[in-house]
Amino acid sequence: MKNASLGTINTQYFKFSELVLESGKKISPVQVAYETYGTLNDNKTNAILITHAFSGDAHVAGVKEGENKPGWWDIMIGPGKAFDTDKYFVICSNVIGGCGGTTGPSSIDPKTSRPYGLNFPMITIADMVNVQKHLIDFLGIDKLLCVSGGSMGGMQVLQWVNSFPEKIISAIPIATAMKHSPQQIAFDEVGRQAIMADPDWNKGDYYDKTQPERGLSVARMIGHITYMSDKSMEEKFSRKLKEDKAPFSFSADFEVEGYLRHRGDSFVKRFDANSYLYITKAMDHFDLSDGKLIPKDKKVDTRFLVIGFESDWLYPAYQLREIIQCLKIKGIDATYCHIKSHYGHDAFLLEKEEQTKLIKPFLNRVYNAG
Amino acid sequence: MKNASLGTINTQYFKFSELVLESGKKISPVQVAYETYGTLNDNKTNAILITHAFSGDAHVAGVKEGENKPGWWDIMIGPGKAFDTDKYFVICSNVIGGCGGTTGPSSIDPKTSRPYGLNFPMITIADMVNVQKHLIDFLGIDKLLCVSGGSMGGMQVLQWVNSFPEKIISAIPIATAMKHSPQQIAFDEVGRQAIMADPDWNKGDYYDKTQPERGLSVARMIGHITYMSDKSMEEKFSRKLKEDKAPFSFSADFEVEGYLRHRGDSFVKRFDANSYLYITKAMDHFDLSDGKLIPKDKKVDTRFLVIGFESDWLYPAYQLREIIQCLKIKGIDATYCHIKSHYGHDAFLLEKEEQTKLIKPFLNRVYNAG
Repeated sequence: MKNASLGTINTQYFKFSELVLESGKKISPVQVAYETYGTLNDNKTNAILITHAFSGDAHVAGVKEGENKPGWWDIMIGPGKAFDTDKYFVICSNVIGGCGGTTGPSSIDPKTSRPYGLNFPMITIADMVNVQKHLIDFLGIDKLLCVSGGSMGGMQVLQWVNSFPEKIISAIPIATAMKHSPQQIAFDEVGRQAIMADPDWNKGDYYDKTQPERGLSVARMIGHITYMSDKSMEEKFSRKLKEDKAPFSFSADFEVEGYLRHRGDSFVKRFDANSYLYITKAMDHFDLSDGKLIPKDKKVDTRFLVIGFESDWLYPAYQLREIIQCLKIKGIDATYCHIKSHYGHDAFLLEKEEQTKLIKPFLNRVYNAG
Repeated sequence: MKNASLGTINTQYFKFSELVLESGKKISPVQVAYETYGTLNDNKTNAILITHAFSGDAHVAGVKEGENKPGWWDIMIGPGKAFDTDKYFVICSNVIGGCGGTTGPSSIDPKTSRPYGLNFPMITIADMVNVQKHLIDFLGIDKLLCVSGGSMGGMQVLQWVNSFPEKIISAIPIATAMKHSPQQIAFDEVGRQAIMADPDWNKGDYYDKTQPERGLSVARMIGHITYMSDKSMEEKFSRKLKEDKAPFSFSADFEVEGYLRHRGDSFVKRFDANSYLYITKAMDHFDLSDGKLIPKDKKVDTRFLVIGFESDWLYPAYQLREIIQCLKIKGIDATYCHIKSHYGHDAFLLEKEEQTKLIKPFLNRVYNAG
């Protein structure tokens, strides 16, 4: 599994004194966890920002010291890969509100010297992008060659275009939407309700006690159903019964049940329940529809490659086509590519070859034109 | 709302001494809650059994004494309606394992004089049908003109054909499947996990304490998302924010959130959490696929009208077409009708006109031929 070619990866940390949120509230100080891969060229024209999905973090590629598991998009980032680290300087940071090293509800509130919990202010996708802008400035990068990400990562890509179009040469939003539909909000809401129904949640004040593991695990299970397709579940599990047990009881009879429980259980070890609440709320309130995507007062030269997947019913193709329509109306250079896949929403994390085929020449074109 | 034409409806109760389950275990005694509408004719050829869905009960039509809300399929059953009570004698009973008056986990176990809880044996769809057969025998009915139901009700219809084909002249399974896919099992499993994660569940022993309301409410919310379509949610809620609150917090911002919470909260008042576990397990283990639907040693003359709905993604059209294929291979008189509807799985409870148009002449034909 070790991706020796990227060497050993270390998460780095950058701090700045104060972030003014979209709501007007302030967070200070702010720490940002980030990783970089490849080398920034002398004129700083080869930087690519990767934005992560809901449960992702800064560790997008390579293997960290003492670990075995490669980063969450390692199939796409590395020497010779779609985001070729022999050529480009790739950056990924954990979002504000997260729990992967960037300031979030589990961080210490300097006012109380205790974890923020629900005292952490509500955050938005625009706030996430503003934090990334601080990081880019800190790294001395004036323009990004590309911003790319799937799912909530795609929302950040769209928000970058909206907030700082002059700063990004190209954008690759994948399996995402300009706004959540009521069904998407509903799935998020049930996850939040599952967490808040757990007595261990204790109104978000659990950091010196027990994390609301049962509620968070149920929330994650719901998520996993929406990340897969009917067909990919059929291929993976069929109706197979678990081998190690007598059938027909309330323990997990079917393999699919065991899988979901396992995914729920492993999630609670790495993710903070309050971050689940804050980040899903940020997604649900994100809305760049109705012409809001492209700001009226700014010239947008950003080139777009928009990617969606056949069996993704969480972010269905019509939502990606709406993005394209919005861009085309403004005369922006944009293409939609629809990839055939059975993997459902997870496809953006799994379909290496098809995505590489599309992304590599696209990046090559924008890099050579730049 | 009052459906005066059916008069005041009373739930009736029938008891028998012992039910031998598919598993070989026994339940004794068994009480069955049922209701009837219309009049059984002298030669008892006009009886129709309606089988209910997961959370349904015996109260399918009309209004009970002292209540205002009509039964769950009142749009379809009554004088002049699809199941015309001026012509037919309609029966509906609560399933074994349920909590609507038929013996289930909340009933008193005569061995302990306490509610069964998890001492209630696992039950199957075939067990539900066997209980209905006891009821039909008790009512002195030799043959049913028709068995009809949607969702889990449709599974019971299919099980009737499998268990007692000689007893049913026609069958109308609606929005159902011969077996649950892994995705359907997964949604049920997350609901069960939400209930079992609630400390109030207490391994099913909560009847003298508090019902696991929070877990059961979350389970119901998940269900409601799967009963609606992306489009029906869009039409009903759009992204409207609730009027009575300041936006952007962890209380319900969006109307869809308020709706789900309300549906969850009202469900816990009328449904037993252990029944949720037992009945969903019965659905998940139901499997009449791979030619099992039609028993090899029996002649099946039953005529089928199979109905599915365009936007039903919980029981998609391909599952209904699989039923038809299975019937046609055996040379059975069967038709599939696919109704255009935005209502998702809920369509079978809402689409009065389209279903009536199909069911009324179908019943007329089988009644006149009989």
